[in-house]
Amino acid sequence: MKSEQKTADVSFESLLRIFTIPEGPDSTLTKIDEELSRNLNKFLKEHIVAEEKPLREIEKDFSNASIPEQPEFVSDHTQHLLDTLVSHSVHTSAPSFIGHMTSALPYFLMPLSKIMIALNQNLVKIETSKAFTPLERQVLGMLHRLIYSQDDSFYGQWMHSANHSLGAFCSGGTIANITALWVARNNALRAQGDFKGVEKEGLFKAMKHYGYEGLAVLVSERGHYSLKKAADVLGIGQEGLVAVKTDNNNRICPQALQEKIVELKAQRIKPFAVIGVAGTTETGSIDPLTQIAQICQEEECHFHVDAAWGGATLMSNNYRHLLDGVELADSVTIDAHKQLYIPMGAGMVLFKQPDAMKSIEHHAQYILRKGSKDLGSHTLEGSRSGMAMLVYAAMHIISRPGYELLIDQSIEKAKFFANHIEQQADFELVSEPELCLLTYRYVPQSIQEAFTQATESQTEKLNELLNELTMFIQKRQRETGKSFVSRTRLNPERLHHLNTIVFRVVLANPLTSCDILGSVLKEQREIAKQAPKLMAKIEKLAEQIRHS
Amino acid sequence: MKSEQKTADVSFESLLRIFTIPEGPDSTLTKIDEELSRNLNKFLKEHIVAEEKPLREIEKDFSNASIPEQPEFVSDHTQHLLDTLVSHSVHTSAPSFIGHMTSALPYFLMPLSKIMIALNQNLVKIETSKAFTPLERQVLGMLHRLIYSQDDSFYGQWMHSANHSLGAFCSGGTIANITALWVARNNALRAQGDFKGVEKEGLFKAMKHYGYEGLAVLVSERGHYSLKKAADVLGIGQEGLVAVKTDNNNRICPQALQEKIVELKAQRIKPFAVIGVAGTTETGSIDPLTQIAQICQEEECHFHVDAAWGGATLMSNNYRHLLDGVELADSVTIDAHKQLYIPMGAGMVLFKQPDAMKSIEHHAQYILRKGSKDLGSHTLEGSRSGMAMLVYAAMHIISRPGYELLIDQSIEKAKFFANHIEQQADFELVSEPELCLLTYRYVPQSIQEAFTQATESQTEKLNELLNELTMFIQKRQRETGKSFVSRTRLNPERLHHLNTIVFRVVLANPLTSCDILGSVLKEQREIAKQAPKLMAKIEKLAEQIRHS
Repeated sequence: MKSEQKTADVSFESLLRIFTIPEGPDSTLTKIDEELSRNLNKFLKEHIVAEEKPLREIEKDFSNASIPEQPEFVSDHTQHLLDTLVSHSVHTSAPSFIGHMTSALPYFLMPLSKIMIALNQNLVKIETSKAFTPLERQVLGMLHRLIYSQDDSFYGQWMHSANHSLGAFCSGGTIANITALWVARNNALRAQGDFKGVEKEGLFKAMKHYGYEGLAVLVSERGHYSLKKAADVLGIGQEGLVAVKTDNNNRICPQALQEKIVELKAQRIKPFAVIGVAGTTETGSIDPLTQIAQICQEEECHFHVDAAWGGATLMSNNYRHLLDGVELADSVTIDAHKQLYIPMGAGMVLFKQPDAMKSIEHHAQYILRKGSKDLGSHTLEGSRSGMAMLVYAAMHIISRPGYELLIDQSIEKAKFFANHIEQQADFELVSEPELCLLTYRYVPQSIQEAFTQATESQTEKLNELLNELTMFIQKRQRETGKSFVSRTRLNPERLHHLNTIVFRVVLANPLTSCDILGSVLKEQREIAKQAPKLMAKIEKLAEQIRHS
Repeated sequence: MKSEQKTADVSFESLLRIFTIPEGPDSTLTKIDEELSRNLNKFLKEHIVAEEKPLREIEKDFSNASIPEQPEFVSDHTQHLLDTLVSHSVHTSAPSFIGHMTSALPYFLMPLSKIMIALNQNLVKIETSKAFTPLERQVLGMLHRLIYSQDDSFYGQWMHSANHSLGAFCSGGTIANITALWVARNNALRAQGDFKGVEKEGLFKAMKHYGYEGLAVLVSERGHYSLKKAADVLGIGQEGLVAVKTDNNNRICPQALQEKIVELKAQRIKPFAVIGVAGTTETGSIDPLTQIAQICQEEECHFHVDAAWGGATLMSNNYRHLLDGVELADSVTIDAHKQLYIPMGAGMVLFKQPDAMKSIEHHAQYILRKGSKDLGSHTLEGSRSGMAMLVYAAMHIISRPGYELLIDQSIEKAKFFANHIEQQADFELVSEPELCLLTYRYVPQSIQEAFTQATESQTEKLNELLNELTMFIQKRQRETGKSFVSRTRLNPERLHHLNTIVFRVVLANPLTSCDILGSVLKEQREIAKQAPKLMAKIEKLAEQIRHS
């Protein structure tokens, strides 16, 4: 509040000042702005993942629930943020941060983000967004075309049509998936005869009207955890999210899917949607979309594709075939803040049919009036920022061939790394990369041999110990802060479907070099030595197995 | 993609460059950054609301659904954005933009926003947010304390507890309200005996288990439109959102509420939540919260307060009494992007009980593991940005007394404006401001007299014509772009509950002077003259009424 003055009182004059644009390059705020940029650039350049400080220690800096009674100078508070917050945040842009889908950003988006923040548009309605509304509609059109490849006349007719919508821009993939299932549910339980539709009368009456005993959404056992949340919110219940068996490559088995549907129908449970995953979160696998589409068509199910992470692959003419069949989906989720390299908060759901979203359309008196082009009449969220602008800018500045290069290099790097892991005697690749995601674990060579000779119960025991080791290595590596891989739990067939903890790597950052990948393995090998007791226990068991 | 080079090809080297921090103050990107700041400052300083250009014209600039095959220079694209987007966006920060809750921002938030964008943290989990997680928990604690005034030991115990949550940070009030009702629904239909809870088995089985014929959420007829959306999504159905009669001040009638509850129960419909509105969107009215709380306690309903807009009033020791009873609510929605002057995308829902959100808790294998402090286990959204940082910074830089001044001045300005409107012979105040929102319309004096002598059908006819006039004035004023008020439809008792279109004004911007308010009225009076045919029609009818 005191960017331009030196006293520390609260006055209406000083408040007016904070709402006034600073004049000239010598203003205090301009100086703070420049200083902040330098500081952030310094932070972003550091090739570490995080400072080593336990969370409990950091929490001490954020333990006061009282709203301050005394204002702080902008400069002082900025310094405070740099010391307590920035220095203990995660370097998601570090080339050695390869554990999650959050990655480095193209640097040009930093200055461009100012447009979004400074203009403070609200995309829920034209009256607070004007040109941002057609811009967002164009972005949705571009993504729609990327998936469905309709012709110019299609987009000319629907992209800016007040009563239609090619999709919705959301805060993220979870809201996008919920929106898709909301639309699917409402279309499945639509008005009929005296029944006014589930949106009006609710689920209980809908079920009674249609004579169903339950509703189901089917997805592979590798589906994203947020789908359970969606099933809960939408009143279907988590048990209504039916997990379908996957093959050895973590892809849904079409036959198992078909059988499940028959089984559900026999119980008067309506399978109203099937979700194909194009890039599972844990293994990066892509379901056989064309086959799912065929089953959905026969069974009259809504076919949704969760391509939150993998959808960006469509930008590459060399790899888009991996998602063949996505164009048959009724709806598709894509997160621009994943492989389209946009800052956090840019999810999208696209619908094949421009009138699909009719079933969730809503209006109000003061905005979203019928016939208006207000985007809010087709979104789950209300007030929303102009994030679409950053997608628009990146599409123009990077262009499709630029994205193609980014996608291609990440897939090829993942293949390189998988190969590199397989060449190591003491590492084991658990899931092959289809895109740029793979899983593996550390298994000393002597242990690998023991596995081949172990009885069932010995295998279980050995696997348990290895899980402990993997967890230890992952945690210690994260805490050390030089590099970061994540971990998850899989049930690989090769290990008799035992719970198996694995390292999980996502190779999105183009600055991640092969050297860095090599040193991640080296570091893990070294960390294993820091658990001598556990290692001795493992070796001892391996020894027993070999001699039994 | 070409910020640092002059050729126009796509190469992997140029892609690496866009992910690399620019060096020094002479880099092209630094220059673009500075140029952009100057341009935005110029735009923000213009005291107009929007450039006069029809939406259809603007759409032409955003009509290409193809993703470009050719990259653009950052500098060229920035210029393109300034020409086509920025110049045709809405000046939400203009002091004459008084039509919606989106307002000017404290300027210091612009540079601070860089921290959020550049660090690109993902708040769903500690591993991608570290210090941002305790920061967000502190912000939720601060808002919780602002509402519920618990003591230090309460916040010491719960604020950072892994298995508890004082609330959820959301993209906006709609998601906040949905979250509150989701929690309320799941708590009302919790596990019991063999029944595993609505979250697991879904709504249909829950209703059968509990023997209900329907579910209901009660709210005044002035409740926000998003609540209908919430009722739809949650499977309750829009008809399950039961509108309760309001008094002449647009506040819910407690007796009518009580009666409705009895009526619903008699039909075996479970009223599981009542929503009190603290600042209705259309009239800014505050429901009698203490009375609602008492009814909720007796009826064992979840009591939610939608204070998305009005909640910030709690910052003022002079006016927080207007929200008396809010501390009795089980949950409260507050949007920081409304009267807390934070950029778009900062909604929050707070829960009185730290374990209230247990009923929507969810976990996954690779994140949100049990016992982790990952925020994502209690949010509807998944990946989320570090917006909480901006709330934190504003709380410290503005401080509570600073916010108090902002709130007080806006309420007092609204009182001044209401008074000013009443002094005009040709304007009519329709709803008094409780906070900084009021509604009014333009009614030439001779027409006002006619109203007093009109028969019922004449009143209806006259009112219809005045509605047309109000709509004409509002649209023309918006299109002219000098100032902006919104419009809505009310049913005031004084007008026999006829549909009445009114101007709606929200006085949030501290730079909005009394002079500006005066000229808004003057402009509206002038615009009325631009509809001579309509005016003649109105005068003629008034004449008839006077002589009948």
